[in-house]
Parts: sequence; C-alpha cells; structure tokens
Amino acid sequence: MATKANSVPHPTVIKVDPFKPAAEQKGLHNRWHPDIPAYAAVKPGEVFKVECVDWTGAQIGNNDYSDDIRDVDLTKVHNLSGPVAVEGAEPGDCLVVDILDVQPFEEMPWGYTGIFELNNGGGLFAKEFQSRAAKAIWDFEGIYASSRHIPGVRFAGITHPGLIGTAPSQELLNEWNRREGELIQACGEVVPAVAFPPEPKGVHIGSKEPLKPEVLEKIAKEGARTIPGREHGGNCDIKNLSRGSRCYFPVFVKDALLSVGDLHFSQGDGELSFCGAIEMAGIVTFKTSIIKGGIEKFALKQPIFLPSPVDPMYSAKLVFEGISVDYHGDGKQYNMDATVAYKQAALNCIAYLMKLGYTREQAYLLLSAAPVESHVGAVVDSPNACVTLGIPLGIFDHDILPNPDGLVKKDFGQCAIRSDGVV
Amino acid sequence: MATKANSVPHPTVIKVDPFKPAAEQKGLHNRWHPDIPAYAAVKPGEVFKVECVDWTGAQIGNNDYSDDIRDVDLTKVHNLSGPVAVEGAEPGDCLVVDILDVQPFEEMPWGYTGIFELNNGGGLFAKEFQSRAAKAIWDFEGIYASSRHIPGVRFAGITHPGLIGTAPSQELLNEWNRREGELIQACGEVVPAVAFPPEPKGVHIGSKEPLKPEVLEKIAKEGARTIPGREHGGNCDIKNLSRGSRCYFPVFVKDALLSVGDLHFSQGDGELSFCGAIEMAGIVTFKTSIIKGGIEKFALKQPIFLPSPVDPMYSAKLVFEGISVDYHGDGKQYNMDATVAYKQAALNCIAYLMKLGYTREQAYLLLSAAPVESHVGAVVDSPNACVTLGIPLGIFDHDILPNPDGLVKKDFGQCAIRSDGVV
Amino acid sequence: MATKANSVPHPTVIKVDPFKPAAEQKGLHNRWHPDIPAYAAVKPGEVFKVECVDWTGAQIGNNDYSDDIRDVDLTKVHNLSGPVAVEGAEPGDCLVVDILDVQPFEEMPWGYTGIFELNNGGGLFAKEFQSRAAKAIWDFEGIYASSRHIPGVRFAGITHPGLIGTAPSQELLNEWNRREGELIQACGEVVPAVAFPPEPKGVHIGSKEPLKPEVLEKIAKEGARTIPGREHGGNCDIKNLSRGSRCYFPVFVKDALLSVGDLHFSQGDGELSFCGAIEMAGIVTFKTSIIKGGIEKFALKQPIFLPSPVDPMYSAKLVFEGISVDYHGDGKQYNMDATVAYKQAALNCIAYLMKLGYTREQAYLLLSAAPVESHVGAVVDSPNACVTLGIPLGIFDHDILPNPDGLVKKDFGQCAIRSDGVV
Amino acid sequence: MATKANSVPHPTVIKVDPFKPAAEQKGLHNRWHPDIPAYAAVKPGEVFKVECVDWTGAQIGNNDYSDDIRDVDLTKVHNLSGPVAVEGAEPGDCLVVDILDVQPFEEMPWGYTGIFELNNGGGLFAKEFQSRAAKAIWDFEGIYASSRHIPGVRFAGITHPGLIGTAPSQELLNEWNRREGELIQACGEVVPAVAFPPEPKGVHIGSKEPLKPEVLEKIAKEGARTIPGREHGGNCDIKNLSRGSRCYFPVFVKDALLSVGDLHFSQGDGELSFCGAIEMAGIVTFKTSIIKGGIEKFALKQPIFLPSPVDPMYSAKLVFEGISVDYHGDGKQYNMDATVAYKQAALNCIAYLMKLGYTREQAYLLLSAAPVESHVGAVVDSPNACVTLGIPLGIFDHDILPNPDGLVKKDFGQCAIRSDGVV
Repeated sequence: MATKANSVPHPTVIKVDPFKPAAEQKGLHNRWHPDIPAYAAVKPGEVFKVECVDWTGAQIGNNDYSDDIRDVDLTKVHNLSGPVAVEGAEPGDCLVVDILDVQPFEEMPWGYTGIFELNNGGGLFAKEFQSRAAKAIWDFEGIYASSRHIPGVRFAGITHPGLIGTAPSQELLNEWNRREGELIQACGEVVPAVAFPPEPKGVHIGSKEPLKPEVLEKIAKEGARTIPGREHGGNCDIKNLSRGSRCYFPVFVKDALLSVGDLHFSQGDGELSFCGAIEMAGIVTFKTSIIKGGIEKFALKQPIFLPSPVDPMYSAKLVFEGISVDYHGDGKQYNMDATVAYKQAALNCIAYLMKLGYTREQAYLLLSAAPVESHVGAVVDSPNACVTLGIPLGIFDHDILPNPDGLVKKDFGQCAIRSDGVV
Repeated sequence: MATKANSVPHPTVIKVDPFKPAAEQKGLHNRWHPDIPAYAAVKPGEVFKVECVDWTGAQIGNNDYSDDIRDVDLTKVHNLSGPVAVEGAEPGDCLVVDILDVQPFEEMPWGYTGIFELNNGGGLFAKEFQSRAAKAIWDFEGIYASSRHIPGVRFAGITHPGLIGTAPSQELLNEWNRREGELIQACGEVVPAVAFPPEPKGVHIGSKEPLKPEVLEKIAKEGARTIPGREHGGNCDIKNLSRGSRCYFPVFVKDALLSVGDLHFSQGDGELSFCGAIEMAGIVTFKTSIIKGGIEKFALKQPIFLPSPVDPMYSAKLVFEGISVDYHGDGKQYNMDATVAYKQAALNCIAYLMKLGYTREQAYLLLSAAPVESHVGAVVDSPNACVTLGIPLGIFDHDILPNPDGLVKKDFGQCAIRSDGVV
Repeated sequence: MATKANSVPHPTVIKVDPFKPAAEQKGLHNRWHPDIPAYAAVKPGEVFKVECVDWTGAQIGNNDYSDDIRDVDLTKVHNLSGPVAVEGAEPGDCLVVDILDVQPFEEMPWGYTGIFELNNGGGLFAKEFQSRAAKAIWDFEGIYASSRHIPGVRFAGITHPGLIGTAPSQELLNEWNRREGELIQACGEVVPAVAFPPEPKGVHIGSKEPLKPEVLEKIAKEGARTIPGREHGGNCDIKNLSRGSRCYFPVFVKDALLSVGDLHFSQGDGELSFCGAIEMAGIVTFKTSIIKGGIEKFALKQPIFLPSPVDPMYSAKLVFEGISVDYHGDGKQYNMDATVAYKQAALNCIAYLMKLGYTREQAYLLLSAAPVESHVGAVVDSPNACVTLGIPLGIFDHDILPNPDGLVKKDFGQCAIRSDGVV
Repeated sequence: MATKANSVPHPTVIKVDPFKPAAEQKGLHNRWHPDIPAYAAVKPGEVFKVECVDWTGAQIGNNDYSDDIRDVDLTKVHNLSGPVAVEGAEPGDCLVVDILDVQPFEEMPWGYTGIFELNNGGGLFAKEFQSRAAKAIWDFEGIYASSRHIPGVRFAGITHPGLIGTAPSQELLNEWNRREGELIQACGEVVPAVAFPPEPKGVHIGSKEPLKPEVLEKIAKEGARTIPGREHGGNCDIKNLSRGSRCYFPVFVKDALLSVGDLHFSQGDGELSFCGAIEMAGIVTFKTSIIKGGIEKFALKQPIFLPSPVDPMYSAKLVFEGISVDYHGDGKQYNMDATVAYKQAALNCIAYLMKLGYTREQAYLLLSAAPVESHVGAVVDSPNACVTLGIPLGIFDHDILPNPDGLVKKDFGQCAIRSDGVV
C-alpha cells in the first residue's frame, strides 16, 4: 500500500518567503564573491529543491500601475539563492547540473514583465523610446501565461532560471573587475550605464552565521554585480536553459558553490526590455554530479548544456529580418554588428504588432516575454550581419498573418503605466 | 490514362550551365541596379523554375586541393539569375514569393564549403586564424550531405537560396552607396575589407539584348555589390528561408525584378567561414503573388517570411554559450556586442570539436555548413550580450556527449588544403 | 510590492489523501451514473484544482515485490474525483475543458507500472505470457522518471489524466449496459473477461451528504464500470490528452458533471500491460467554458481535443512494424485487424529489447510506460492492417541502434516480481 | 573549376516511362515470387536510382471524371520496379536500405487519390458508403500539393514508397498462400474481398530476358499478390517510411532482390480510401548495406526503421477519438478492436469536415491523402480500444477550430465523380 513512510519528498535545502524583502532573508545573496560561504550542502546524485524570490526581492506588486518599476532599487538585485556546496567538487572540475524542474510558488500564481526607465535600468530601446516605466502582469494558469495588460495572447511557459552559476575564484573575479572597469572608463558617464562596478550599497549576504565585518566589507567592495552573464554562467538569460536541461559548469572554487535566481516563467530570445522575461518567484529542483578535470576534458571556457525535450513547440512563426544598419534611426551603417541587426528585426516586429493594434509598450513587452526565437542568420556578409526574430503564430487567439486586405487593427488597450500617466 | 498531354511540367524561365563560366552566360548578373533589364517575365500565380550557377560561377572544382578557393575572383560574385519581372508589381507593393523547392542539378550532386584567405574574402575568424584557403567537398546522396574531407558526419539538407531579393530603386541604391561609403571611409584600409564599394571590374550583366554602353557603364559604376543583405533581401544567408517558406518582399521598382542565386544545400546559423554554406548550383521553383500597398500595410522595412514546415528536425543538441568578452583573444570587454558573443560561442564549439579529433579547419567548416542553431540569448545584461550556438547530436555517427571519462579523440584526417601545404 | 494579499492561489475544489484507502474518502466515486450528485461546483472561466488518488486508491506500495499487484481489488477501481458541476451546462452543449496542468503530489514523488495476473486484470499479452504479477516503481525527479526496476532509461513525463469524462444520461448508460451485456453474453465465460458488467461489490460514492439507500442501490446495480472509454470520454488513456491540451466534451446531463482520475506521469501509445502507464496520485488544474448546442455544431459523438504544445519531443525513434498475422503465435491470418497488428509490432519490439538484455517483463513494462508512439500505418491493404510502434532513442542512456556487430547484451536485472518468485 | 568530368551523377538502374502501360515495360513486375530474376544489380555502398510508374501503371489520368478509377484493372497491380540484386546478401542477413530521396518525375507534376467502387477495390468505408468511384487530382508545386477537387488545403509532401520489400523464399511464399487461403475459405464470398489469392490473369514479369514458360507459369500460379504488407515489408503504406529514413529488411533469398513501387507524394495514417495516398510515378534514390546474420542479431520478423529527420512538422492538430463500438452504424460493441475504433475516429472527423462544407467524398479523400496522424491510444481497456486521428490545422487556408458560434460552412464544390453522375 502507498504510505507516507514509503514516499519520501525531495528535500528543500533553501527556503524563502516570496512576499518578504530579500534583505531580511537568509539563504540569499546579491553579489558574486568566492568568500560568500555555502548556505547549504548537497552530495552528488541527490535530488534537492531550492526556493527563490523574484529577482527584485518582492519589490514589484500585482497591480495596474508601473510606479514600483519606476522606483525599483537596482543596487539590491539580483537576489540569488545559495550558495550550495556540492561535496567533492574542486577547481578544474565540471559540475553537471540537471535542472529537473522550475515551478512558480502555488501561492503566487503570477509574474511580471517590466520596461525600465531610461535612468533606472534601461533596456534595449531605452534611448530610442526614451523609456518610462511600464509593466504587464501575467497570470499563471497551469503551464500557460496570459495578461490583462496584453490581451489576445496566451502561451505555454518555458520555465528557467535566468541566472545560475558557480562562484568565481578570486583570480577570475579580479579579471572581471579589471575588464569591466576598463570598459566603464573607456565609455565615460553614459545613460544607461554600460556596466556596473562593485557597489557596497545594497549588498546582502544572508549567510547562516553572521559574516565577520572584514569579510563582508571585502565582498561589498569587490563583489561582482549580477547583471551580466560571465564565464561561470551567471545572468545569461537563456530561455532554453529550461527545466529538463542538463548544464555543465566549470568549477573555480572548492565545492563549486552553486547559486540560482531570477526565475522566469517565459522569455523571448533577447529579453529585450531588460526586465523582459516573465519574472517570478518559485522553486527549482536540481541534481548534480561531478566530472573530475572536466574543464580540461571539454575545453570549458563557459557552460555548455543539453536543452530540454519539453520546451514548447510553436513551429509556425512569422519571422522578421534585421541588418546592421540603423534604418529605424539615423540610417548609419555599422560593421557586422549583430546587436544592431537584432534591434532592427525587433523594431520591424514591433511596427508590425502596432499595425495589429498593440501599443509600442505592449509590443515591446510581448517580444520580451513570449517564446520568440531569434537566430543569428549570418555574420560574414560585410558589412551587414543579419539576424532574424520569429514570433510564434500559435500564441495569438487571432490570425496575425499578412493578407491582401492588410491587417485588422484591434483595440487592445494599454499595459500598466505610471500612475502619473507618463509614457 | 496518364499521358504526356495531360502532364504539363512547370516552365523554366532561366536556364544555365553549371559547368560554364558565369560571364559567358545570359540570364545572370552580379550587381544590384534598377537599370538591369528583366531577363524573363511571369504572371502572379504561375509556378516557374529558375536555374542558378553556384555563387562563384563554376570557379570551384570537385577535387582535393583548395587552390581554387585561394585564387577565386571575388569581383565576379555573386552570380544571380534574373531579374524576373512579376507583371503588375509596383513600388510600394509587397511581392509574396513562395520558395516551393530548391534542388541541386542531377548532374552535379556535390557542393563545397570554403575557408577563404585572409587577403581574399576573409571570414569570421580570418584574423584570429590568419586564414589560408581550405575547403570541404560535400557529396549529395538524396536529402543528405556527407564529406570525404570531414568524416563522421552526415546531415539532411535545408536547401535554400542564400541570396534572393527585389531590385532597389535608384534612391535606395544611392542610400546604400552613401552609408557603406561612409563606413569604408571611417575604417580606412583594413584587411579583410569592412565593405565593398561599386567595382567596375568583373561586372557581368547577361541581358537578353546587349545593353547600351552608357547603361552598362552606369551599372558598373553605381551597382551595389552583392555581398551584404539589405532592405530588399539580398544576401541574407538565412538558412530557414528554405524550400517551403513564403517570403514577403518590399517592391521598389516596376515589376519588382526578382533575382536569386547563391544556392545552399545546407548552412549553419552564422555561416561563419564566409563561403560557409554548402554552396551549390541548382534549380529553384517559385510562385508569386502581389499585395498592393503591402509596404505600408505591413510596415515593411525588410522582408518577413514564414518558415518551411519541412526543415530538418534535429532536436537534441549540445549548446555552447558565448558573451561579449574576447576571452579567446586579448580578454577585452565589449559593450553588448552580439557578434563578439557569437564568436566566443563558436570558438568554444571549435575547441570542443578539436577535443574529438577534428582539425581547426574541419571544425570551422563543419560549423559553417551543418544545421547549427544560434540564438541570441539576451542583449540587455550590460555589458554582456549572450549568444548560444547548438550543434545537433544527430549529425554525428558517433557519440559526442560529455562523459566522465572525457572525449574520445579520433583521427579524422584533414580537409582539403592548398597544394603547397600551407594551412 | 508582492504581497499575499495580491497573490491569490487557484482554489482546490476536491482534496484527497493519497495515502488513505479511497473508500474512506469523500469526493471520490468509482462508477458512472447520472444520479451521482455533484461534489463541487465551478463557474465557466474559473481556474480550479482537483486532487486525485491513484487509480487503485493507494493499494500499491513503493516496494520491491509485486504481491500488491497480484492481490489488487479491481471491483474498487477506478477512483475518480468528482463529479464537478459546471454551472450553466445543459445536455447538447459542448464542455470545453482546458487541462492546464497535471502534477504529482510533492509528498509522493513516485508512481508504478504493473503487469497484472492473467486471472486478475489481464493485459494485452496476458494469455501469450500467462502473466504473473510484476511491477516497476518509477521515481519522479522533476519532469523525469526513472526506475530502479528498469535500469538504463530516463524520460520526460507527459502527465495526463488517463480518465476524464462527463456523466452519462440515463439513456446513454442504458445503451452502454445493453451493448456491453450483449458482448459478454456472446463471448461466454472467458479469461481475461471481455467486459465488466455493473458490479455492486466495491461501489464507492463519496458524496457530500449520504445518499439515500435506493439511490445508492440503483447506482450500484446500474452504474457503468470505469474500465473502458466511451462516448463521454472516460478511460481513454490517450497519452497526448496531456497538460496543456484543450478538450471538447459532449454534455449529457445538467451541469455536465465532470469527473477525473487515473493520473499518469507517462504512458506509451497502447498502454499495453493494462496498468501500463506510470500510475500516480496528483493534482489537475482545470478551466472550463461552455459552447451552447456544441454537440450539434461540431457533430460531437465523442470528445475531440487540441494537443499540448509541450509534449516531450523525442524525434529520433526506432520503429517496429506489425501486420494482422499472429506470426508470434500460431501463424493465423486475421482480417484487417489493427489490434493483432499492434501486438506483433509490440512483440517485435519486446524481442529486440530482450536482445539488449532486458527481461520480457521489463520490456513489456517499458513499452507501456515510456513515450512510445504507435501509428496506424494502413488499414486498407487486405487482409493485413499495418501498425507501427516507435521507441524513442533519447530515453536510453546507451546506444540501442542496430549495428553490424549486433547488439550488446547487458545485465539489467529484473523488475519487481512476486515474493514467491513466480514469474 | 566545376566540370562535367568531376561531377558524376548517381546511376539509374531501372528506367521506366510513366505514360506507357506497365505491361509493355521491362524492369517491372506485379507479383512476389523467389523465381523472378534480378533486373539490375548493385553493390553495397553504391548510390543508385530506380524509376517507378504509378501503382496502376498509367491507368489513371489527369482529368475531372472518375471513370478510370471505376474501370481500373486490379489484376495488374501493383507495378513494382525491380528486383534489384544486392551483391553479397544471403538468407538470414539484414539488408539496410537508405531511402535517400523520393521525387515525382519533373514531366509529371501531379498525382491522384481515389475512392474505389465497392465492387472493384473497396476501401475502408466501401460498405458504409456503398462507394462509387471518385477521385482528386493533386498538383505538385515543389514540396506542396493542392487540388482543384478539394479547395482550401495545401500541404507539404511526405514522399515515400508505399511498397518496398525483399523477395520471399519459397517457404515463406507457401506460408503466405496457406494462411491467406484459409482466411478466404473461412470468410466465403464477400464483397469487398477479404484477401486476394494468386491470380494468373494480369501477371507481368518484365525481366531482361524472356522467362521460360514453366517459370512464368509457376510465378503466375503461386506468386503472391502485392496488396498486403507482409514479413518482407511489401505494401505496408507507412507514411513515415519516407525519404531520409533507413530501413532494415530481413533477407530471404540470395542477393535479397529488392523491389519498390507505389510511390506516394503524401498519405494520412490509415490510407483509408484504399487508393488513399497521393499516388504518383517518380524516382527513388537508394543506398544499401548488409549486416550478416542480421535476422538473428535483431530478432527481425518484419522490417524495422529509423524515420526521416525531414518529415513535415505540423504540430498543431485537431484530434478525434474513436472506440470499438460501431456507433456510426448499428451500435454494436466489438471486443478491443482497434480497426473499429479507427473507423469511428475517422467518421467523427469526416462528420466535422462536412460541417465545414466539404462533401463526404472530399472529406474521405482528404483524410486519406493529407499528413493525418493516427495513434493507438490504448488497447487494454476492455472492451474498448481507443484510437485517435489528428488532422493538422496548418494544411487549411482557413480556421477550422471549434468556436462558440459554430463552424462556418463554405461551398467547396465536389471532387471528381463518374461521368454518369453517380456518387
């Protein structure tokens, strides 16, 4: 007979409260540094769960104004769960991580996508659009998300951690700070910022035992910000590193020290509006193993992974092309720049969605959040890189295909904007 | 009863000889200019075929040296079939083109992938690798390609025209020449070149009737080179614009004047070695229709398309990540540069393939030619863009997955190199 | 800010204990009858959850013997959660049911697949194999299942309710009893039974308020057994009616009275060993709507559905063929019998798996539980129907392809068998 | 340089004329018998082509009446190309056949689907519909087919040989004749026939050299008809045994003696109208290899195969269910009969398509020809087998989904019927 005795749930090694500010919780940290001590430990082969707050640590609410987006404190992000020590891992090894599942909390069946202000976070079109805060709340209904702020669409989630990585060694951390510092210096003061140097303000290390002040100070002064992805993984925001995938991380410190956070219910390739995924709090299920000497064995400079067999299959798509000419702006020719090409493809798609009746903000949010596919077409046809962006037809409840009569323009209202009405 | 009388083959409106220099053939041209007269005309709704030489116009042979790649004359490329006038199309319209099929010639069941010399064509890693000419010949066996120069792989083709577009208006052409000229001026003399200005040498316009000298001279002086993709389509090298897809082109001149060439049996996202696809001569089957005023109706700045339902499905992949730090080179941090990120992902994959026993040249060619998928992961996590590159497991006849014992290194020989042995 | 107040979980309208005998629980019933009163009520558009025990009602344990399978009491199955009244549904309508999610209980991360005894339940090969009880326990690790009883495989679940349907009208119920009674009479006493007439023994109706004795007696005497699928849906055991699918049910009684149970973590097409899916207890998330007069509008004789976009994609398969000749038995030719053809294909696959080292019981269980695809090839080539059965390559951790050296036979032990050792 | 000299086309080992009666051509035969001599010979590893007439041998024309279907001479079918001897194959071996490509003839870009008369060929619903001859002509436009007789649909082909197999040994042939003879005897005279005994009328063996009269007589008297698939493959009509697949055949005679024919441009699972695929003449490209002792190594009772990676991907479907109760007929309950279940699912789909405006004949033809997927859901839930049939949404140029307002009924005319107007 089935009994509790013969039914052992997988242990949760880090527990959090998604409704409580991250800074008040243990098991969370928001900088990368080798001296952040392990909060939990697991053995290879063990299945375990890790709970995560949303990346802002509960700063954003389920409501119809974007004031919380406007006012978000970015010195406090991302709030990561961990580090988790994997017993036996040593520098030079490869840590194999099975991302067995990623689920929202049952008591929090919603997430959000935000457009950040030009002066507070930015985003891919922060300057082009002179961005003001806007957002969409997404309701989770089982595997699907839909939004009262972007009517007419529903899609299956492709849940994944936007951010997952092993801890850097001191050497690697120094290298990050060197190269990013040089970029900051080279660019001077620009808005939005090109990169984020270590920032003592807002640091939170929710370790088991209080850290010695000198350790905390070192972390605050040197700790790498979590915004970019780097050699250890980190905030790569790869939508297909989703539940069911297997990832191979390089190990830089003893016990690997795995951290995870910034869970996404869904995301489009590019995640263009910066807070572009459907951000959520939730639970990740993991299993790990160690391959000794894996960095050398696999020439591992950055993680590699096997995608999941259960990513949603929206095979029919409408695909937009872009090249490295800023023809939506001043017409300048760039040299084989895939980022510029990506932007044109996205702007072409936004223009198309606006013909269907979506506002620019809705279109921008939708491309960020839906399972949009962006491929690098070619990066050798000088001077134009070509990038494509495909939007699945199956996520719309209406026909969006080009047809001889043109497109039917509907009224989809507007997404959540600031309470002062500024867009 | 089935009879010849009731079985009408689709007409071929342009015929070519794949074994004859392109410059000696009619129906081919190798510049973009509104004054190139239509070579053939079709009505909307008609199914028709267009034959194409390979992009070099028979310069490359089925042999085991890369001397022909080294010596290729790039002033003569690409050789395009056309223009085909579509009756009734007018500037401002959208030309709908069904790419119904793309097949190699029965009498030429092979194609090639080339690495070009640093000084003659370049390629994505021309400088990094100080590239010398190399190539792989691919044998076509039905839907599959395999190569004596890259043993251990076989894959289904995803046949497509690397280059397809409508003719530019004079205004658009002028704009191209302006912006590309400015880039050339800004960069100065560099190797490989950043862009290619109009070049009278090598121009070929194989029109029905001889052109007036002043027209030919104008085309030679102003005609845009065919290397980059642009607003009209052109050399976009998008592997998924394959047989079975439907493409929506903006129309800039009367009758649209569609041209096509640079057929590929297969290509990876990025086409990294420049002549990176499996280049072939062959036959395209088309059908067109016109949507009046389509540019305005669909906000069309560049073509959009619906991909084919028959692209090969290699769902299991090993995915490599890259960020916009040149960690394979001098370690410099770039600002959200997806091209740099793509390059790191590709270099990570090449390093992995070399652990399996492929030479650097073989790996470079393989990534260019096989149905590799490259996604823009995220382009908002300052300063790092993240790009992924996934290589299908199913194209290998051996297991390439990471495993605890490391990778088995086999001897796959080498691809075709120069007869003087220089690599 | 995210708060409990703005985060409303979806309500659970039926709660059960997966470790308690079903007969002791409310909200469960194990017969189909129009007089079974609604246990819960929902409005169209509402998202709600329903908890389900496993189909046997906790009779099977997580252990290494199959005695519980041998001794299972089949008069008590299936235990269904419901009925759920959908307000406003009337006979003749179509009830649209979104199966938004299907998850195992967190506290019970395992399921089982069983081979039933010839004399107690049977199965597709009960007679051919003179079946004795055997089973495999499957451990759930996020989206994956694996089994200590069938080493070497792991696959992503395709979670679905094996059984879901609306209540029959009295007329429809009478028709079921008539036609099944005639079959039973025509076949006489056979083992295993061809069909199951109403059976008062074991009836359980866990209604809110105690039923009047005469009502209970009527249900016990007339209530249709839950083994077969019928016009209302019921036990169709369709693996692709999985989480994410949308199903259109005919409505036969006021408020539709939807019931659900027999949850599966995974199943192969055919579910051949009878208890062939990975049986589990768990939670279904639903949303409904009503289409008035839908039976007539859609010519609805039985449910139709739209499959989920997230079913696992194992595209590479090894496919076995079968025809309607019992060439594994007495060589008899059957007349266009797809069931016989299915059996040959399955037996061909079992024979192949045994060459790899699996026992017959392991192979039989594996085909039942894994995401095997069985297609009806052709049913018009008299006298042979042709049916195929494809087993995904990606579920094995070793290479199972035919190769010139033959197949490597490994030792995979044996599945759970009876404690008396009888197989 | 590319030259004819370095471009060697694959040889065509059997050439036919698709517009000439099969009986007048060499390289064709229409019975299975071990004494039919090889018409061509190939070596393992060689790529070669085989041309095929359509299965009737040019009896059906591209016109708008079905009289040719009504009058077809079925004693003459199928016309197979071959046999092809594979050097070195011996009884007990496994013949590996790569079906590298399947293409229609360029000069015959059309095919047909037929409903046969109850008294001449039948079909799955011959009795239910009291079938009279009807047909649809399909035009091939590259990879797509569409029909003037069934407007509103277009789909990508999944080209395949409906019929492919090795020659039987004398023992195997005797066994076929025994068992099929017993079935014919058991059923008595029925219409349509349950099976087809050897039939001297219409025999054609187009061997290189004239056969000795006694050999021809033996073949005529004993030769197995080609209608059903059997242990050697034969007329299995499996749509996914398509171009790009690899098939493993058992070898029963020296040199294997492979024959192929009955090419299909497309087919639905089940091929229900008997001549249900899109029948065509065309060209198959093959490559073979031999695995010594493969029958024993792989427990090979019938071919097994690896499907192609390029089958069209129409993931969104509307799925119909059926059970083994003839609820479209007399309401009889059958015992776990998957064929009856398949029929109900198909009839449910036909009823739905008729709500959209298609005639019963159009719907029947469409289900036969389009890439419909039919899965065996479950064959263990006594007494009801459950079978599903899914029709892809992407093949329609209009929305066919159920919606609250019911289905829009359009006028699609009618398919080709008899010139006397009888339907």
